[in-house]
Amino acid sequence: MTNAPLSHAGEAEVALETIREAASRLAGVAVRTPLLCDTPLDRLVGGRLLLKVEPLQRTGSFKFRGAYNAIAQSAKSTVVAWSSGNHAQGVALAAALLGRRAIIVMPADAPRIKIDRTRAFGAEVVLYDRVRESREAVGTRIALETAAEIVAPYDDPRVIAGQGTVGLEIVEQARAAGRVPDLVFVPCGGGGLVAGCATALKGLLPRVRVFSVEPEGHDDTARSLAAGERLANPPGVRSFCDALLAPEPGRLTFAINRRLLAGGLVVSDAEVRRAMRLAFSELKLVLEPGGAVALAAVLSGRVDCRGRTVAVVLSGGNVDPEPFARLLLEPADPG
Amino acid sequence: MTNAPLSHAGEAEVALETIREAASRLAGVAVRTPLLCDTPLDRLVGGRLLLKVEPLQRTGSFKFRGAYNAIAQSAKSTVVAWSSGNHAQGVALAAALLGRRAIIVMPADAPRIKIDRTRAFGAEVVLYDRVRESREAVGTRIALETAAEIVAPYDDPRVIAGQGTVGLEIVEQARAAGRVPDLVFVPCGGGGLVAGCATALKGLLPRVRVFSVEPEGHDDTARSLAAGERLANPPGVRSFCDALLAPEPGRLTFAINRRLLAGGLVVSDAEVRRAMRLAFSELKLVLEPGGAVALAAVLSGRVDCRGRTVAVVLSGGNVDPEPFARLLLEPADPG
Repeated sequence: MTNAPLSHAGEAEVALETIREAASRLAGVAVRTPLLCDTPLDRLVGGRLLLKVEPLQRTGSFKFRGAYNAIAQSAKSTVVAWSSGNHAQGVALAAALLGRRAIIVMPADAPRIKIDRTRAFGAEVVLYDRVRESREAVGTRIALETAAEIVAPYDDPRVIAGQGTVGLEIVEQARAAGRVPDLVFVPCGGGGLVAGCATALKGLLPRVRVFSVEPEGHDDTARSLAAGERLANPPGVRSFCDALLAPEPGRLTFAINRRLLAGGLVVSDAEVRRAMRLAFSELKLVLEPGGAVALAAVLSGRVDCRGRTVAVVLSGGNVDPEPFARLLLEPADPG
Repeated sequence: MTNAPLSHAGEAEVALETIREAASRLAGVAVRTPLLCDTPLDRLVGGRLLLKVEPLQRTGSFKFRGAYNAIAQSAKSTVVAWSSGNHAQGVALAAALLGRRAIIVMPADAPRIKIDRTRAFGAEVVLYDRVRESREAVGTRIALETAAEIVAPYDDPRVIAGQGTVGLEIVEQARAAGRVPDLVFVPCGGGGLVAGCATALKGLLPRVRVFSVEPEGHDDTARSLAAGERLANPPGVRSFCDALLAPEPGRLTFAINRRLLAGGLVVSDAEVRRAMRLAFSELKLVLEPGGAVALAAVLSGRVDCRGRTVAVVLSGGNVDPEPFARLLLEPADPG
């Protein structure tokens, strides 16, 4: 298969069956991450939390799933991606495992650790000048020169189907534990993870309510869901949640999310920081800011979870030691 | 059943079958913690690591398993234990789940968070003066007054059998992943966890080699194994690994460990700190010092793991934010 067309018909390309096929490709390759239940956080929300732990996924985030599912279906010997974070690592490892050459376009001023880690997975890193060049332009030129496949971070049905295996596993693992989720909360940047999860979850449990969760300042999906059309974020707004900085919802992901989501929630930096501290102390897990937004939404009481069975996706844990240490040293809040 | 006698015949009371019975009691109550494989740490040791993640266990350490297995077999309505750490929390939660009254004897100067957390699990905390009183004397008096069962931290066959379910799960989960461990490394304080694990592991895989791992200054099991008799630690030595401060090997645990272990290893504080930092950055897991000693032994190359399949028990994650933050802010070592 060559590049999947990103047509308006794209939505039909991601179905429960597509996600099951992705799960078959990922079996024995991706980690079937645990779904934690009966944690001390249940008492804080008054409900039964089911926590899907993607920081334990290979490369430290869910991104490996979609990258592997896409590259496994590509006939190209070279893949190109642009990302300064989790998608870069997911593509780099997936390409290495599948015997493909990976070229990742990263900003020259990206944290050294992210560049080093992407290289450590075997990828070639091409640095660009964030001020003078466009990463899309650099990446597209390289893809043309090398006859490579571009692996998009979210707006690709193969990527969405790969991320959807998170939702499939939530249903299977909840069932094995004798539980059925009423509500599901999923972090949202470009919307690939929540679109895939919602497709799997609504396909298996039609009455479940799935919510996207975004950080303040990057609430494009929440506003777009409310408006019924894709709205962009104001340019130049930074966020503590560096993994969730997509400029606007994807065309394909928004078409899915608009149809399947119960709503879009937004959390503050302070709520995210509290969720990260509680994950440290009560779950013994390292969450990155973007990986903690769904937990933050649940802990902040945005939706009443009392008496409900509530699945929460913890989507990644790639955070540097220094900012994490500073977070731990902040005075604890009364909550 | 009343207090199990700690006779020389005690060793015969912990067998593979006893551990299977413990596993039945714990099914659906304890977390079947994940066994991680294919982590980035494989490259550092040149072998295939299988990491058993007990920080994700209820109360944040393996101690819940043994406590629950012991209390479930007791006919007494009240249980008493003394501990300033993980055993206290394990007993408190297990007693609450089994509808028993729990009285935990803790030093008056114990960290407030540990006292609060033990109370939060529903236990009554009795504080004693560490200088003027003996916790054993205080606890024994309370047990007599309340006709309670004393739940020992390690030298009890029911506790050892409960901890042994960690070893049972390692074999089952490794098998499901198509792997068979050659070497297994287990943290060791009083020796209950490693004795139980070794009983399960050697019972199912007679050729596996199981090692205890202790911190410097508290290497009583390593020295006792070498001497062929139980030797105590010098009094008054403190350790970074606050969960592993037993004064000497248990009578029952040592009888088992002497027969089944391939050896006892000792790691330095610096090696433990490096293991904790790597668990943070590569595994996204919070380990307490005592929970990281087995990983430290493997990462330091104490035993050649190249080309081997190596199971490592990460036994707990109950560490306070401040010392963990200080650890993250230390300059990274060249390793």
